[in-house]
Amino acid sequence: MATHIWNSMKTKLTIIKVGGKIVEEEATLYKLLDDFAGIEGSKVLVHGGGRSATKMAAQLGIESKMVNGRRITDAETLKVVTMVYGGLVNKNIVAGLQARGVNAIGLTGADMNVILSDKRPVKDIDYGFVGDVKQVDGQRLASLLQTGIVPVMAPLTHDGKGHILNTNADTIAGQTAIGLSPYFDVTLIYCFEKKGVLRDEADDDSVIPAINRQQFAEWVRLGVIQGGMIPKLENAFQAIDAGVSQVIITAANAIDGHQGTIIR
Amino acid sequence: MATHIWNSMKTKLTIIKVGGKIVEEEATLYKLLDDFAGIEGSKVLVHGGGRSATKMAAQLGIESKMVNGRRITDAETLKVVTMVYGGLVNKNIVAGLQARGVNAIGLTGADMNVILSDKRPVKDIDYGFVGDVKQVDGQRLASLLQTGIVPVMAPLTHDGKGHILNTNADTIAGQTAIGLSPYFDVTLIYCFEKKGVLRDEADDDSVIPAINRQQFAEWVRLGVIQGGMIPKLENAFQAIDAGVSQVIITAANAIDGHQGTIIR
Repeated sequence: MATHIWNSMKTKLTIIKVGGKIVEEEATLYKLLDDFAGIEGSKVLVHGGGRSATKMAAQLGIESKMVNGRRITDAETLKVVTMVYGGLVNKNIVAGLQARGVNAIGLTGADMNVILSDKRPVKDIDYGFVGDVKQVDGQRLASLLQTGIVPVMAPLTHDGKGHILNTNADTIAGQTAIGLSPYFDVTLIYCFEKKGVLRDEADDDSVIPAINRQQFAEWVRLGVIQGGMIPKLENAFQAIDAGVSQVIITAANAIDGHQGTIIR
Repeated sequence: MATHIWNSMKTKLTIIKVGGKIVEEEATLYKLLDDFAGIEGSKVLVHGGGRSATKMAAQLGIESKMVNGRRITDAETLKVVTMVYGGLVNKNIVAGLQARGVNAIGLTGADMNVILSDKRPVKDIDYGFVGDVKQVDGQRLASLLQTGIVPVMAPLTHDGKGHILNTNADTIAGQTAIGLSPYFDVTLIYCFEKKGVLRDEADDDSVIPAINRQQFAEWVRLGVIQGGMIPKLENAFQAIDAGVSQVIITAANAIDGHQGTIIR
């Protein structure tokens, strides 16, 4: 209860994470930018861009190698993702938000050292220039937000030794939400293809409205929640445990926070 | 004299503009980053990247069309420069400066709306998505500088209507220097291939140490100063007239401000 009262005294902050598919097609991008511009109060947008990177790599004759859904980022691929995520996708979103009256700023983790990562250690697989988030400068981001600026974060961080590192956008969103939770009452919204966590994979309208850890364990035991949704929800509970007020899993066309599955 | 006394009360700010050639080769880039990291006090780095853009365009099968040394920026070329200037070149500089203890942030004009441009009107030539700088938010940049952040500016601006615009890096440096001059005692350093403005094109050591408007007019009349150096110096005098304390034209390996040609 004490935490709840304290949170209610903090300013609300909404962090939206959208995947590459949404930001890479003009129609869905414009809809997203309109909806995002309409969100009241402080906000952050975290974007992916994997499809554009794959397309650009192909155009440059660079083969995209994926393992367990993660991109193997060799030196040439790192150039492609730095260009596509940090340049093309990020700056078009920033310009699009400026046109909608949102004073956006594009950031990678290297900018103002907001997200420092470790290059992922080589175990069974060498992922190459991929970052595991080590530290988010929540204070610096909070200062920026308090002057009315809206960060737009690309899925890139750095190692503090001069290297950009390709970094999972879900992780950036989750870690940024945690890093900002001492300063804000944070709602983190993960957008994906479905309307939320489904009770029945075959029925798009069978959205589970809310879920806690006990229910999660039970749904997993019963096989209702499975596959890629399990790590997504594990991340969500980790964010809640670390001070984020709520996490919502919903569709990109429903970022008002009133739909989807609420994780508390 | 009053202006001089007032300027001496303001904090010093150094703005360095470097061309694409310097930032695109590892050896010269690292030397520049070391030297730039060594500059005391507030500072801004403005970079080009034209050679990388031309190379990337060629790899993607896009022909680079230049008129009077300026790139014709069609929709496909705009994508290339947005990727290369705003992503690849900018973020590598930012990461390289972070590794040297400089808390850099990469910016295009769209970020925090720091530089708003007009798309260049079509007269004899349609330059495409090219920006003519309309407004620099000096106050916003000054606030950032006052918190110890070092802006690294890519040669891209925006039109406020959702479009990124390709923008001359010399112009960005000059206009940023003017925009910051109410807040700082600004020294603007243009780096180029020579050690400064030369009295004798064939003698690299014939650097003119200082030049004022009268001397400039005289050197032009005598044919000593000619070609591309004339608009460069016109820009420099424009900056001086608009409140910039001094402009220096020098080589990229001499950015300590003690060499080259000083324009006052």
